[in-house]
Amino acid sequence: MRAVDLIRRKRDGGELSTDEIRFLVGGIATGEVPDYQWSALTMAILWRGMTPRETAALVHAMLHSGTVIDLSDIPGSKVDKHSTGGVGDKTSLILAPIAAACGVTVPMVSGRGLGHTGGTLDKLESIPGFRIDLDLAAYRRVARECGLVLIGQTAEIAPADRVLYALRDATATVESIPLITASILSKKLAEGIDALVLDVKTGDGAFMAKREDARALAESMTRIGRELGKPVQALITSMDAPLGRAVGNALEVWESVECLKGRGPDDLMEVSLELAAEMLVLGGVAANHDDALARCRRAIADGSALDRFRRVVAAQGGDPRVCDDPLGVLPKAATVELFRADRAGFVAGIRAWPVGQASMLLGAGRARVDSTIDPAAGIVFRKAVGDEVRAGDVVAEIHANPLHAAAVPQVLAMLGDATAIAVDRPPRSSLVLERL
Amino acid sequence: MRAVDLIRRKRDGGELSTDEIRFLVGGIATGEVPDYQWSALTMAILWRGMTPRETAALVHAMLHSGTVIDLSDIPGSKVDKHSTGGVGDKTSLILAPIAAACGVTVPMVSGRGLGHTGGTLDKLESIPGFRIDLDLAAYRRVARECGLVLIGQTAEIAPADRVLYALRDATATVESIPLITASILSKKLAEGIDALVLDVKTGDGAFMAKREDARALAESMTRIGRELGKPVQALITSMDAPLGRAVGNALEVWESVECLKGRGPDDLMEVSLELAAEMLVLGGVAANHDDALARCRRAIADGSALDRFRRVVAAQGGDPRVCDDPLGVLPKAATVELFRADRAGFVAGIRAWPVGQASMLLGAGRARVDSTIDPAAGIVFRKAVGDEVRAGDVVAEIHANPLHAAAVPQVLAMLGDATAIAVDRPPRSSLVLERL
Repeated sequence: MRAVDLIRRKRDGGELSTDEIRFLVGGIATGEVPDYQWSALTMAILWRGMTPRETAALVHAMLHSGTVIDLSDIPGSKVDKHSTGGVGDKTSLILAPIAAACGVTVPMVSGRGLGHTGGTLDKLESIPGFRIDLDLAAYRRVARECGLVLIGQTAEIAPADRVLYALRDATATVESIPLITASILSKKLAEGIDALVLDVKTGDGAFMAKREDARALAESMTRIGRELGKPVQALITSMDAPLGRAVGNALEVWESVECLKGRGPDDLMEVSLELAAEMLVLGGVAANHDDALARCRRAIADGSALDRFRRVVAAQGGDPRVCDDPLGVLPKAATVELFRADRAGFVAGIRAWPVGQASMLLGAGRARVDSTIDPAAGIVFRKAVGDEVRAGDVVAEIHANPLHAAAVPQVLAMLGDATAIAVDRPPRSSLVLERL
Repeated sequence: MRAVDLIRRKRDGGELSTDEIRFLVGGIATGEVPDYQWSALTMAILWRGMTPRETAALVHAMLHSGTVIDLSDIPGSKVDKHSTGGVGDKTSLILAPIAAACGVTVPMVSGRGLGHTGGTLDKLESIPGFRIDLDLAAYRRVARECGLVLIGQTAEIAPADRVLYALRDATATVESIPLITASILSKKLAEGIDALVLDVKTGDGAFMAKREDARALAESMTRIGRELGKPVQALITSMDAPLGRAVGNALEVWESVECLKGRGPDDLMEVSLELAAEMLVLGGVAANHDDALARCRRAIADGSALDRFRRVVAAQGGDPRVCDDPLGVLPKAATVELFRADRAGFVAGIRAWPVGQASMLLGAGRARVDSTIDPAAGIVFRKAVGDEVRAGDVVAEIHANPLHAAAVPQVLAMLGDATAIAVDRPPRSSLVLERL
């Protein structure tokens, strides 16, 4: 078997066998299939696509390029959630403690933010002392003791994906649905989960800006997951506006704690609760979606979700007082500038993409993989879509430290560009656009 | 400028600027654009194509990745010929001495054979002592003294092409017309030529098996060459049957000497003379095509072409007696097996591709870049297309040494498969299919 012949076949629109895909993925570790062959292959896959069978074989081979963690000694269902990423998307920090409180174990391996989107790991690391680099033994122990665990990808988990992901990033071959499916599922299935809930974002601030692309990815992921024996439930949710009020790492931890205390904004609570409810149904701890939603709401009302979050923060070395006094514990920016409405009316829209770009300029996100981030920086909206404003009202706070203070005028301009104020109140609509 | 953004643009069907192409090619030498980015880019180019302007910019950048030899101190025109490769194609050894004898300097940088096709360098090296690895000073000296010089690619000539060619070979991105155009023209224009004649082969034994692909390549090469200020004249010639009687390195040198003595077979002489005549016209030493053809025939009749070959062989360290007693000087195979006709009739066709494969099995060609070849091995046809045969007549000789003798039964079967014998004499037709 020669890689060049397989690349040629895919280039010409042909199909690769399961054995051939296993050979190609196995060749990443042995060096038998060097990176320059894989990058040509990923371009050919982006061009020609993959059948569901090929995609499933790719997931399987990448999954088994490393350790597939066995959590079967932990009683009950293990269910995780994955989001394709957005602006202000801190649902992981909210729904994982909720699901844990309701009896579903959530073993979550997350990533870092890149570009205009944030990453769960960066948010968690803004909690003083919080460690995301647990070894597998600690991962199991925390999952068992807390019902949830929140770590970063380890060397053992899908090493082939790490190589391919870096390669795709450098060769403009990220936007391929079979390759995205394989990357996400290989990492997620390696966690030891029984089922997965998928939050596919679409709209201005999403990677899949177009609804049909989001649907195609959701269909691919649910189909391939089910073919591999792991139920996958997908929601397509709107990422036209930032989710919740806070964008930035410590600021989003603060907002998540607010949500776990029952004081979260409607949009963020809707998406978090809908996703958590799907996890409960897949995990078999709720009879149906309505029952699941009711249980999730109860876990917030009775403080059990917040308690789970407090326990996992402590178990992972973080300061658990973040649950009681987040503003006292979390890092704070030196200055807060104010963005004000230039006219009266209703907030008709806040475009997520420029808000994500603006928060990156403040140091809250990474322009490059090796950028360092400022945990305290970011933006907090005091007005949300649908709110009435008067001219001069504060729409958003800009939290900045001296290193990025020079960006504030540009951030103000970007927020002005992102925020639409209209005469009429916009209609309210659900952020959950589709269920697959 | 980031390579990944340029790959993305090409992937999406966009166009690259001349500066961007220069950056990408320059990045090969500096390492700024690593091989894995180039291989994804070549796949994107194979997919999306390149405009003539992009292709010209690519040729220019690859040409200037190394030394562009200046032969302006040699009087008269410098014209070379390039063939896209075939089976039994030894026209370079015939037309270069003819053109030199007629007053056109031929500074020829050639390649080795790969797969079912032979290479000029391998043929020349079957002449005892012949050296193809001259340095640039010797290259100039031999070109000036003999009117022709025949070497292999040096480190100075289009180094970017060497890297890209190896990469394309390993990533199934060879078959792209802009990339083929850039590879050939960058090497050829670096030789210091004023004009180029191109022999684009089509048919069973050619890389461009389909006529329309051959035409597209010929059009691309002539257009881009002219855009870069170098006249390019292309012939599309048939490679359905092996060219001439001999296939194999020393055997083809023997046949070339026969041709230079005026004893060559019609098909080989037709293609060699037509190409040589184009070189004379481009080189300005003949008034028109008919005049050029007459001069070429005269150079054979008066022995001046053979004399040029004798001089270049001697100048490059080879044994010049190859021109007087080729069979005495050239290596000979230990055994000659005979392939006979199984019925009476007319030879209706001899498919070039299986003949090339068969000669490779005998050691005359390379299955892999690092295969060693047997200079004496090969096949000599005693019957050509159109000849009448009786059952039992010898159609071909199989020249084999012990290392590859085990392949002889398979070679016999392949020759049987390649040779069609029909009741009626096939019509005769010119091998020159088109002129561009």
